[in-house]
Formats: sequence, C-alpha cells, structure tokens
Amino acid sequence: MGQALAGAFLKAGHPTTVWNRTASKADRLVAEGARRARSVGDAIGAGSLTVVCLTDYPAVRELLDADGVDLDGAMLVNLTSGDSAQAREAARWAERRGARYLDGAIMAVPPAIGTAEAMILHSGAQADFEAHASALGALGTVTYLGADHGLASLYDVAGLAMMWSVLNAWLQGTALLRTAGVDAGTFAPFARQIAAGVAEWLPGYAEQIDSGSFPAEVSALETDARAMAHLIEESEAVGVNAELPRLIKAMADRAIAAGHGKEQYPVLIEEFGKPAGD
Amino acid sequence: MGQALAGAFLKAGHPTTVWNRTASKADRLVAEGARRARSVGDAIGAGSLTVVCLTDYPAVRELLDADGVDLDGAMLVNLTSGDSAQAREAARWAERRGARYLDGAIMAVPPAIGTAEAMILHSGAQADFEAHASALGALGTVTYLGADHGLASLYDVAGLAMMWSVLNAWLQGTALLRTAGVDAGTFAPFARQIAAGVAEWLPGYAEQIDSGSFPAEVSALETDARAMAHLIEESEAVGVNAELPRLIKAMADRAIAAGHGKEQYPVLIEEFGKPAGD
Repeated sequence: MGQALAGAFLKAGHPTTVWNRTASKADRLVAEGARRARSVGDAIGAGSLTVVCLTDYPAVRELLDADGVDLDGAMLVNLTSGDSAQAREAARWAERRGARYLDGAIMAVPPAIGTAEAMILHSGAQADFEAHASALGALGTVTYLGADHGLASLYDVAGLAMMWSVLNAWLQGTALLRTAGVDAGTFAPFARQIAAGVAEWLPGYAEQIDSGSFPAEVSALETDARAMAHLIEESEAVGVNAELPRLIKAMADRAIAAGHGKEQYPVLIEEFGKPAGD
Repeated sequence: MGQALAGAFLKAGHPTTVWNRTASKADRLVAEGARRARSVGDAIGAGSLTVVCLTDYPAVRELLDADGVDLDGAMLVNLTSGDSAQAREAARWAERRGARYLDGAIMAVPPAIGTAEAMILHSGAQADFEAHASALGALGTVTYLGADHGLASLYDVAGLAMMWSVLNAWLQGTALLRTAGVDAGTFAPFARQIAAGVAEWLPGYAEQIDSGSFPAEVSALETDARAMAHLIEESEAVGVNAELPRLIKAMADRAIAAGHGKEQYPVLIEEFGKPAGD
C-alpha cells in the first residue's frame, strides 16, 4: 500500500520522499523520480506533509518515537488501519510531540489508489484537512468526516460491515436459489436491485432514529418477524445455512419483546446499540 | 391485501368479481364497480383469471377443496405467502383438480399495489404467465421467474434477506457512529453509497460462483478476516452489539479453515450452501 500511495503522489506531480524499513522496496519509486530518505527523521523533514501507512498503530509509535525523529511542526496523516481509540490516542501523542495529526482510513485495494474509486476517509482538525486536501486528493476520493480523530476508523468498519452484509445476504439468497437450479448469475441482478433499492430508504429511516419516533408507516416489526420465520423455515427446509436468518429474527424478536412490535424496523437501533443480553 | 389487489384491477378497467368470507369487506369494492360473488365457486366461474390471496396455503386448500367449487379449466394465480415446497404442492394439487396454476409472491405493502413500486414475482408455466401478464400487470411490476412453481417463494425470502441485511448493517454502523456523536442522518448517505456500490459487484462475483473458481482478484479472504476482527473489536470497545460482526467473521473463518483463505469472498457460498456444522 505504501508503494501505491507514493506512486500516486509522484504521478500527480508532487515531489515525493520515500522511506521503508527495507530500503530496496523503494527502488521502483526512486526510478520513477522519488527521493529516497536516509532515515525516518530525514523523511519527515523533507516535506510539508508526511503520510504514514504501516501494519498497525504500535508500529507507527515505535517508528516515530525513535531517537532522531523530530515531529515538532510536522503534519502527519496516518493511514494505518486501526480502531477509533487508537486513532484518538495517536492524535494526543502527536500533539504532545508538537505535530499536527490527521487520521485516515483507506477503503480500497492498492491497485485502486490514485483513482476516483479509492475512497479515503479523514478525521481530525478541519483546517489541517483543508490545508492538504488538494495533495491528499492525488490518492483517491477523499472525504472529511469531522474533528474527532476516531471517525475515520469508525466509518471504515461501518462501511465494511455494510459490504460484508450485502455480500452475505446475496450468498444466502444464491444458496437458496441454487437448490432450485437457479445459477448465481441469474439471481445476481435481482439481488442487486433489492440492495440498491433498500439503500435508498436509509436517509428516510435515519430520520426516525434521529427523532426517536418509529411509526409503522410501511410495515410493523411484528409483521416483518412473520416473514423472517418464513426465511428461516425455507433455509432449513432446503438445507442451506440458517444462521444469518436466525440472527435477523433474533434481533427483531428482542425488540418485539421490549414492546416495539407495532413500530417500524429502525427501532431495532436500540438492540444494535447495546451488547447482547443487556 | 385482497382489497388492494381487487381495487387495482378495477382501476385498470378489468371487470372484477370479488369474494371474501366476510362479505361486508367487499362493500367498498362493490361501490367502486366490483361484482360480489355469491360463493367461492361463483367467483371462480365468473372470469378467466382467479387471483387468490389468503393467510396461508392451508387456508387456500380449505377454501378451494370445499364442495361446490369446480376448478376444472380455471386459471389460478395464488399470491398467498408461503414457502417453495407449499407452492410446488399447490401446483400439483391444482393440476389434479384440472386447473392451471401460477404461484406468486408480493414484495410490497398494500398501499403500493397498482403502482410500479409493487414488485410481484410469478413462477409456473411460461405460457400461463404470458397469457395473463397484461392483466397481472395492473397489480404492479410483474416478473416471471421460471417454470418451477417454488421460485416465487424462494426469490421472495432471498429478497427479504437482502433487505433486512442492508438494514441491519446500516443499524450496526449507525450504532457505532452514534457512540462518537454522529447522528443517523449524517451516516446514512455514506451507508447508502456503500450498499449501492457493493450491489454493483454482485453480477461479477456471481461469475466466480458459476465457474466454481475464486481467484483473489481484489482481496483474499484471510485479508478480509483481519478487518473483520477490527469490526468485532471496535463494536465491543464502544459497547454496541457485536453479534452481526461475529457471525460475519465466523462464516469467513470456516471457509479459511476449509483451506480457502487465499481465495476471494464468493467462495463463502460453500458455507452458506450447507447447514452450520456440516
């Protein structure tokens, strides 16, 4: 990923200094015009913006807390994967070292970096983002989320949860249809249409959550739960996995048991917002 | 739902005969121009197409197996909710009684019936569908799925699984973001974009399933699994429900344990296609 990021800066015409623990990993970039830093400290001092992308947050701290690394006045953009607590702690640590700090999350694979398909999320001081948004835009489609440094990580995992859930529901449906001899390619356009259609409901459903009021304008949860039972029964009857169907119904059943059966689906936010069993 | 269906036929200009066990339920329809049948047998004999929508399949059998109901030569379209096995059995039963039979599933709430938003799925003999597609089109956007009478029910529950999964993933993400003070309305457009974007991948991913070959063109399952661990840790750390994240990872872990860690996500079809523990 580091090579992809540096390569995108070079391609966009930004003077780029590179550093990797294994110096030879930068050979291709140097051939393309990058300057090879002699040390981490040298790399940070070389420009007005330092982008860091390592295995995890402890690796970032280990590298930048080393002797000879002066962060005072540096502008760090940390694209390392981690959780929101680590991002907030890294921001406090950087501030103590005199650095400005933006956190970031890359929702893309390395080959997509430098194209509009690469979604990159940033959180931290808005002024810092705005000062460097143009340069960061060389990496992909960049989005500023807010001042809380933990937001990039939270949006990242929330987006991944959406990705895996769409895929899993499609796999559940594909498994069901294959028992009737329908191939995956035949079912996929139908699944795509449903997923894209339901996606359009989210802003309206979000209004119910933000207002804390869940009138059953379209359907009541207890009606949905009856159809969920059909999904479980059908999955069991044809011999496919029924864990996802059972989890869907379990969440709804808890909300119904809590007295929300005549309200609408987004009332489930109360169940999703607390650990199971609470 | 029965009133909505009959109302849509009337509105489209079709001569419509109605019957309900509670005769007064048809009063409004009769005022709008429907003919009230004296009996179930009278209703079936009144026109070339009989649409049935009851509580469940046993209720359909009980009603139409009664004395004085002649199904010979009738064309039945059964829009009652049920599972694929019930639909296939109903088709065999109708054939024994001399009737033609199309199964159907309504993916809509009653107020949407008669508009393009009402998705109605049909399965059974193609010639029967084509003979009545124009009339059935008065009810909504009708789709013919294939000759197997069980297909409408299977697509119905598969579509519902997709709907609930998109909603649940959005609720998971909303719950995560709310811990950082982000309201549902702020997160919803992001979730919508991810869901709609991933929906576009499905036809391509379906090709992997149909070919039975899962090269990691975008990402390997074992890489995905590390990010799934982040999702679980983040959910637990901020105190929201972690059951959906844990199920996501459990499915992937099983496929990895079966030797598919270097393959791509759709290889999970093997886990979704069998009961847990098999």
